[in-house]
Amino acid sequence: MTRFLEPPWELLGDPGRVHSEGRIVRAAVEEAREQVAGLLGTRPRQVVFTSGGTEAANAAVWGATRARPGGASVLAAVEHSSVRDASARAGPVVFVEVDGVGRIDPAAVGDALLRLAAAGSPAAVVHCQAANHEVATVQPMAAVVEMARRHGVMVHVDACAAAGHVPLALDDLGADLVSVSAHKLGGPPGTGALVVRRGLRVEPLLVGGEQERARRAGLENVPGIVGFGAAAAVLASPATLEREAAEARRRTDRMAAVLQAVDDVQLLGDLDDRLPHIVCGAIGGVEAEPVLLALDQAGIAAHSGSSCSSESLAPSPVLEAMGADAERSLRLSVGWSTTDDDVDALAAAFPRVVAQLRALRA
Amino acid sequence: MTRFLEPPWELLGDPGRVHSEGRIVRAAVEEAREQVAGLLGTRPRQVVFTSGGTEAANAAVWGATRARPGGASVLAAVEHSSVRDASARAGPVVFVEVDGVGRIDPAAVGDALLRLAAAGSPAAVVHCQAANHEVATVQPMAAVVEMARRHGVMVHVDACAAAGHVPLALDDLGADLVSVSAHKLGGPPGTGALVVRRGLRVEPLLVGGEQERARRAGLENVPGIVGFGAAAAVLASPATLEREAAEARRRTDRMAAVLQAVDDVQLLGDLDDRLPHIVCGAIGGVEAEPVLLALDQAGIAAHSGSSCSSESLAPSPVLEAMGADAERSLRLSVGWSTTDDDVDALAAAFPRVVAQLRALRA
Repeated sequence: MTRFLEPPWELLGDPGRVHSEGRIVRAAVEEAREQVAGLLGTRPRQVVFTSGGTEAANAAVWGATRARPGGASVLAAVEHSSVRDASARAGPVVFVEVDGVGRIDPAAVGDALLRLAAAGSPAAVVHCQAANHEVATVQPMAAVVEMARRHGVMVHVDACAAAGHVPLALDDLGADLVSVSAHKLGGPPGTGALVVRRGLRVEPLLVGGEQERARRAGLENVPGIVGFGAAAAVLASPATLEREAAEARRRTDRMAAVLQAVDDVQLLGDLDDRLPHIVCGAIGGVEAEPVLLALDQAGIAAHSGSSCSSESLAPSPVLEAMGADAERSLRLSVGWSTTDDDVDALAAAFPRVVAQLRALRA
Repeated sequence: MTRFLEPPWELLGDPGRVHSEGRIVRAAVEEAREQVAGLLGTRPRQVVFTSGGTEAANAAVWGATRARPGGASVLAAVEHSSVRDASARAGPVVFVEVDGVGRIDPAAVGDALLRLAAAGSPAAVVHCQAANHEVATVQPMAAVVEMARRHGVMVHVDACAAAGHVPLALDDLGADLVSVSAHKLGGPPGTGALVVRRGLRVEPLLVGGEQERARRAGLENVPGIVGFGAAAAVLASPATLEREAAEARRRTDRMAAVLQAVDDVQLLGDLDDRLPHIVCGAIGGVEAEPVLLALDQAGIAAHSGSSCSSESLAPSPVLEAMGADAERSLRLSVGWSTTDDDVDALAAAFPRVVAQLRALRA
C-alpha cells in the first residue's frame, strides 16, 4: 500500500528517504550502480551518477583543480569541449600536441609535467580521453595515466566516447577520475557517471545534498539511472560487447570504403586503432551543412565532425589540432539499431549527394 | 525513414543537430519550454533547462557570485541546502534572521545590503525562496526582490517548493534568477529550470557546449524535459492550479488537525500563509526516525523535516533558524495522487504510533 507518495510510480520516489518507496528506489539505483560498475570494471562504490558526460567532465575538472589551486591542467586540444572549456575557466592550461590522426603522445605529457614541476608549479591534473569523439582514434590512456601518476599529478580519463564500445577495466587502469555518458552507449540522455578512484576524495561540483555519498547533490534521476544500468548490463558481457563491436566495425569499414571511393574525400583519424562505431571523413570542395541536409533527405542522420556541441558549426578544435580541414568533415556513427540496409542507403546516397553539391559550386 | 539514429526512439535524438531526428526533438524541447514558461509567467527564452532544482540553485549562486567576485551572498538560514552550501563555498555569506514561522524580513535584507555597501563591499546576491520547503511558510519574495533591485544587487528566488502549487508571475516579479524543480510539481526527477531575467547574461556553471543558448552545456534530458512540460501544461491553467491547491489545502488542513489533536505536537511554520500541500509538526518526546518507520508500516510515506537532503538525519538548519526543535519534526505532503483514504490512514495511524513510541520510552 502506497500513500502520500508523490508521484506514485515506483521509480519516481526519493531514494534518500527511510520509507518503503524510498527503499525500493534505492535498491533500483544500487542495482544500476552495480551494472555500470560491471561494464566499466570497477566497484559500485566508485560510481557517482551525474546528469551526463558533460557534468561528469565539469565535475572532474572542478574536483582536480580545487585540490591543487593554481596548478595547470595538461591536455591536448582534441579533448572534448567540456574538458577544454572547464579547464580554461579553472586555471592555466598547457596544451600538448597530437599527431596527424589526433593521437596524444605520453612523452609529450611527461615533458609538460616535468617543465611545470621544474618551474615550481606542478600541474593540477592531466586529462586524457580514452578515444576521440570525432575521429575515433584510440588514445594511449594507460601510458598517460601511468605518466601522470609517476609525477604525482591527478589524472582524468574522458571515456564518454569509448565506454560500451571497447572493453574498459578501470580498476586496472588506475585513473583518478573517469567520465562516462549513458546515451553514448545506448542508455537514455540525462545521465552519466563520474568514476572516482578508491580512497580519493574530491570536492563535488554540485553541493547541497548528501546524495551519492555526498559526492553529487540533487535528487537522483532514477528512471535515467535505471536505463543506464540496463544498457550497461547488456554490454557487460564481454561476448556481447565483442559481437556489437565486430558488427559496428564491419559496418563502419564498409562506410569508410563508401567515403573513400569518392574523389577528394579523406578519412580522418587512425583507421585501424579506432572506436568501432565511428568513421569521420573530410570532403573536399563542399561545405558540411549542405551535405548533412542532403543526407538527411536521403534518410541518413549524420553530423559534422566540426563540432560536437549543439547549435554551432564552428571549426573543430579536434581537426585543427590534427592539422586537418576543420570545416568540411562528416561524422557517421552506427549503433545497435543500425542495419545493413542503412549502410546500403549511405552507399547509394553519398556519391550522388557529393556530386550534386560539387556540380552546384562548379 | 530513420537511419543511423542512435538510439531510435524519437525523443532520444540530439536536438542540436540539423538532421530530421534532431529537429523533431528540438520541437519537443521548445514545446516543453513554452509549457514551463506558461506555468511560470515568463517567456520561453528565459527558461534554461537543468538537471533539477539543485543544479539550478548551484548555477544561480555561481552566476551571481562570478558577476561580482568577493561580494557577499545575503540569505536566511531557512534557504534550501543547495543555496546555503553553494553560497558558503562561493564567498562570504551574511545571514539574515527569520521569525518564529521561518519568515524572512525584507527590512533585515535591506539593512544587510546597506551595511555591506557602507563597508565598501556591496553584496553579490540576495537569495529568497518563494516558500519554505520544510515548513511551507510563504516568503515575502516580491518585497525582497524589490529591496535587492533598489540596492542594485542581483536576486535569486528559489521557487522549487512553490512552483506548481501557488501562482507565479515571474516576469512581473522581476527577479534576476529563479530556480524550479520538475519533480516537485509532478514532473519526472532529473530535470528542472533556471529562469534568467530578460537581458541578463550570467556565466554558466556547466560549460563545453552551446546547448540552451550557451547557458547550460550538455545533451538535453529530452524525455525528462518533455515530462516537465507536460506537468507544467496541466498546471498552467489557473483554474486547475486553484483546484489542485484547494484540494491539497483541504487535505493538509485535516492532517494538521490530526497532528494537533495529539498532546505535545506543535505545528511548525505559518499555518495560514503557507504552501497548500505541506504540513510540518514537531512531536515532543520521540525521535523522528522511529515515527517515520512506524508510519511507513502503516503505509504512509512521510519524512522528517530535519533534513531535506538524502542520507542524513542531521538537525534542520531551517528549524534551528526558527528556534524550533530541529531534531523531532515530521513533514507530510500531498500530491495529485493523494486521496482522502490516505488522510484517513494517517488519522488512524498517527495517534497510535506516537502513543506506542512514547510508551516505549516511558
